[in-house]
Amino acid sequence: MTYDWQELEKTARKWTYEAAKIIKDSFSRPILIESKSNVNDLVTEVDKTIESFFYEKISETYPEHFFLGEEGVAEELSSLEGTVWIIDPIDGTMNFVHQKYNFAISVAIYHEGVGMIGLVYDVMTDELFHATNGNGAYINGEPLVPVKERPLNESIIGVNAKWLVEEKNQYRNPLKALVRDVRSTRSIGSAAIEIAYLAADRLDGYLSVNLSPWDYAAGLVLLNEVGCKASTFHGEPLSLLLPSTFIAGKPHLHKEMVSSYVGEEL
Amino acid sequence: MTYDWQELEKTARKWTYEAAKIIKDSFSRPILIESKSNVNDLVTEVDKTIESFFYEKISETYPEHFFLGEEGVAEELSSLEGTVWIIDPIDGTMNFVHQKYNFAISVAIYHEGVGMIGLVYDVMTDELFHATNGNGAYINGEPLVPVKERPLNESIIGVNAKWLVEEKNQYRNPLKALVRDVRSTRSIGSAAIEIAYLAADRLDGYLSVNLSPWDYAAGLVLLNEVGCKASTFHGEPLSLLLPSTFIAGKPHLHKEMVSSYVGEEL
Repeated sequence: MTYDWQELEKTARKWTYEAAKIIKDSFSRPILIESKSNVNDLVTEVDKTIESFFYEKISETYPEHFFLGEEGVAEELSSLEGTVWIIDPIDGTMNFVHQKYNFAISVAIYHEGVGMIGLVYDVMTDELFHATNGNGAYINGEPLVPVKERPLNESIIGVNAKWLVEEKNQYRNPLKALVRDVRSTRSIGSAAIEIAYLAADRLDGYLSVNLSPWDYAAGLVLLNEVGCKASTFHGEPLSLLLPSTFIAGKPHLHKEMVSSYVGEEL
Repeated sequence: MTYDWQELEKTARKWTYEAAKIIKDSFSRPILIESKSNVNDLVTEVDKTIESFFYEKISETYPEHFFLGEEGVAEELSSLEGTVWIIDPIDGTMNFVHQKYNFAISVAIYHEGVGMIGLVYDVMTDELFHATNGNGAYINGEPLVPVKERPLNESIIGVNAKWLVEEKNQYRNPLKALVRDVRSTRSIGSAAIEIAYLAADRLDGYLSVNLSPWDYAAGLVLLNEVGCKASTFHGEPLSLLLPSTFIAGKPHLHKEMVSSYVGEEL
């Protein structure tokens, strides 16, 4: 089965804006917050509400589609066969809880393993980063231009300072060397937003020691349209089904970060 | 001489919006970029244009006022006597150059050493953080509530990862310990915006190993209105005339960060 991807993107966009409204309305009342894998891994009832919202819309409208989401509303998925929606209802939950700012809805549609549609919606700044495969990437309808390269020592990368100090992080030394060598670092606290910033040339690179498919699935579609590269720290393709390390950047910078820094565990 | 501070704030705000328009218009043509103290300390012709814009407006309208700005358009100032405008025409120049995003105009008015008016305008998100002494702080007219405390291990602080890896930074070890102990870190790359975020409860603390008065003068007025504290790393008052270390936070967090971390050089 083939689809009119532009039409499907319009539907995905409409649902994304509806979901954003539900999130914003939630600010008017207290929000129930829980921890997941550790005390700093937060989830709220709103994350679950939004994931269910998408799951119901998709099940009703496209019953033949599959669904992969952070909060596990749908059955577990073991392959990317067919048409799969990969959704993070709120990427940057800690920001959502603490800041009520700098969090995103991330919606991707993959078809037979290929990213066809990517939407990253920064709810509070009302910036929608959107792309369909082969048709370029955009912010709120304004085209993003193919990225221009900068040397590593003039690059700004997204990286969390925490990873430089955690003893258990096996990539600590290469990351410290990288941070020392780049022009500067930034940390927004939402992988989806930081990957979208890379696509929008607000960052030259971005990396994380551990990301899940829903964190980057939509971002990958954006990156592909502007000529950026993404992989695991070892330069391997991202699985889209399992968590892994994640590094993305403008092509030369990505290659240099992998080959001279994070590709080797120290 | 005394002033109607609310009236003066209106004037400052009007000029700030006019300055923002000049900045945004500059994006349509190439911008001349130079380095200052080092290759990563950037300044553009736009920084200078905006500082001159404010200097001319103030000189014409309030010839009895003094002026302190980042780009040195006015004569050097050796005291805070009288009424002094402290202005950073573009705070976050690296972001301005690289991202065309996440930079701010910072405008403060001090009277006999007391912060009377503080404006931090995030140009691209159109968020104006504003306060007049004793009348509360606001984002675009919406009041900011007095901050609520969180324990250090649930706090998010603004800190740049670079300072954790630079050998010459004498505060490296206490900063590493602090980053290890807080819940998470963020880095926007504009001190003025990060201090405004603290006032708006998007961060619990913020610190920098080296800030100049124009980076934090407006922010201090905001912080004061919501009950946050700011000082040098050693807990001393900020000079407002000379560069220094800078640490700000919700009162208990500020005290703990100074007494248990950065107050002692290691």
